[in-house]
Amino acid sequence: MNIAIYGYGNLGRGVELTARQNTDCTLVGIFSRRDPSTIKTLTGTPVYSASDLYRFKGQIDVLILCGGSATDLPHLTPELAHDFCVVDSFDTHAKIPEHFNNIDTVAREHHTLCLISAGWDPGMFSLARLYASSILPDGNDYTFWGRGVSQGHSDAIRRIPGVLDARQYTVPVASAIESVRRGENPELTTRQKHIRDCYVVAAEDADKAEIERAIVTMPNYFADYDTTVTFITAEEMARDHMGLPHGGTVIRTGTTGLNKEHSHTIEYSLKLDSNPEFTASALVAFARAVYKMYKRGRRGCLTVFDVAPADMSPLKPEELRAHML
Amino acid sequence: MNIAIYGYGNLGRGVELTARQNTDCTLVGIFSRRDPSTIKTLTGTPVYSASDLYRFKGQIDVLILCGGSATDLPHLTPELAHDFCVVDSFDTHAKIPEHFNNIDTVAREHHTLCLISAGWDPGMFSLARLYASSILPDGNDYTFWGRGVSQGHSDAIRRIPGVLDARQYTVPVASAIESVRRGENPELTTRQKHIRDCYVVAAEDADKAEIERAIVTMPNYFADYDTTVTFITAEEMARDHMGLPHGGTVIRTGTTGLNKEHSHTIEYSLKLDSNPEFTASALVAFARAVYKMYKRGRRGCLTVFDVAPADMSPLKPEELRAHML
Repeated sequence: MNIAIYGYGNLGRGVELTARQNTDCTLVGIFSRRDPSTIKTLTGTPVYSASDLYRFKGQIDVLILCGGSATDLPHLTPELAHDFCVVDSFDTHAKIPEHFNNIDTVAREHHTLCLISAGWDPGMFSLARLYASSILPDGNDYTFWGRGVSQGHSDAIRRIPGVLDARQYTVPVASAIESVRRGENPELTTRQKHIRDCYVVAAEDADKAEIERAIVTMPNYFADYDTTVTFITAEEMARDHMGLPHGGTVIRTGTTGLNKEHSHTIEYSLKLDSNPEFTASALVAFARAVYKMYKRGRRGCLTVFDVAPADMSPLKPEELRAHML
Repeated sequence: MNIAIYGYGNLGRGVELTARQNTDCTLVGIFSRRDPSTIKTLTGTPVYSASDLYRFKGQIDVLILCGGSATDLPHLTPELAHDFCVVDSFDTHAKIPEHFNNIDTVAREHHTLCLISAGWDPGMFSLARLYASSILPDGNDYTFWGRGVSQGHSDAIRRIPGVLDARQYTVPVASAIESVRRGENPELTTRQKHIRDCYVVAAEDADKAEIERAIVTMPNYFADYDTTVTFITAEEMARDHMGLPHGGTVIRTGTTGLNKEHSHTIEYSLKLDSNPEFTASALVAFARAVYKMYKRGRRGCLTVFDVAPADMSPLKPEELRAHML
């Protein structure tokens, strides 16, 4: 299958690298709204201006859209769905139904097939929740994130006056996970589930106490959490905090039996050295499914829930049955 | 959907109980090759003779076949596929391709839809392997089973002269799991992955040393493992070993990056108080998918790889997108 990348940030670079690892996958090019001459790719993939994209119509089986959910994807995915089969990683959970409906309308009208909200959450974690709740209807779901870098929270800290750089790690509360695993079905507040661990490089003349106060009281981002703030040097930031690790775990506990006397725990966990590279790897696997489903005549908008897992694999159905079942 | 159970052992009883937990599910009846008057069900479900099954054609949306893989399912599933949509839990991995082809032929000819090898392994563990390998093509898979009761191994011990009862637990080697989780990609022998822990009630005059020797040297079942044998009383067996717990974990570790410098770990784990009740819960969820796919016109044989996860849920697609993605 021929894929292309639209948007060349961390996620776009991840897709570029993932394409090399999938032998059934040819990367046609990278499309950017920046001046292509200013972009140096990791693997020598050609870069084109986004405005040249339509010249490639018919040569791209699936376009992987690597923009941001806040401002890019809500209008870009529907626009591109006119002419391309598109996969995106739209992750604003509350706006998924609206995003889905917008794209479904365009894709049906223009006979394309799109898949939104691929990645790990939404994505693989959503699948873990769906499978587990379908199998154990009497039970409870828990999702814990981390330890991992939250880009949104890091950015929020960087906007505070006097902050030169910042990195925020979301850390699940170990005792809460253990309680869930034991099947205790705890009711957990936001504060009881996650800790926010912040590393900040402050300007020399900055008021560190004031920065710390601004962080821990910030509504939505930090006020509802136990937050720790550690001031570090720019050198320490460069040495210890350049990675983008993440991960988490989805746990469902449920009961069966004549008197619900039997407990079961289903757990799906990810531990990722690179959040964007893993997300990119998921996007390419879902792109493969879109490619296969499009060839079978499917049109409209999909989510990960609509994809039969066999379509994500490069192996033939008979190979999967023989070796992986 | 209207389901029926064929075969009333541990798994059949599990399906009977699961049906009560799924409000979209009506259990039409239990069909057995034994004399129905000798069977007392857990929930008062009517029991019929297997020979009466064909009277119910048209009233059963999905027939859940709860027989054994060794002798029952290879001929029963294809036979029943003439007239019913059937779900089975065929678990002889090496013979799955043959079983699939037999049923696919019958089901296409007679316009039914069947799904084989549902449960947790094969089943949910197979899905974990498929998703993980599709996302991380450069990596290794590991499956560990237990701690849990292996019925086959327990039966093998019971056939030794002088043994009155036996229970065998398959136990994963903790250090092997930890090595895998650390991404060390160990090459593990059979012996390095699992321990076999046996509890035996011997006849009063039995030669215990001889029984132990017969167990630990038994080819295929025990000879390739570190096996521990503990002799207990019938009372201890009844008190401590009546449950059928099981579980396990599927781990894939893989790398991404320009120089494969980033490691990722995907882990799917089950901890089950009752193996048959959890397997039954999975069978009913896959039966729901068969019901929906049949109504959309799908015919032939499926495995869990061919089922879009949305079809396993009683919720509507728009509800899933709004609340579970």
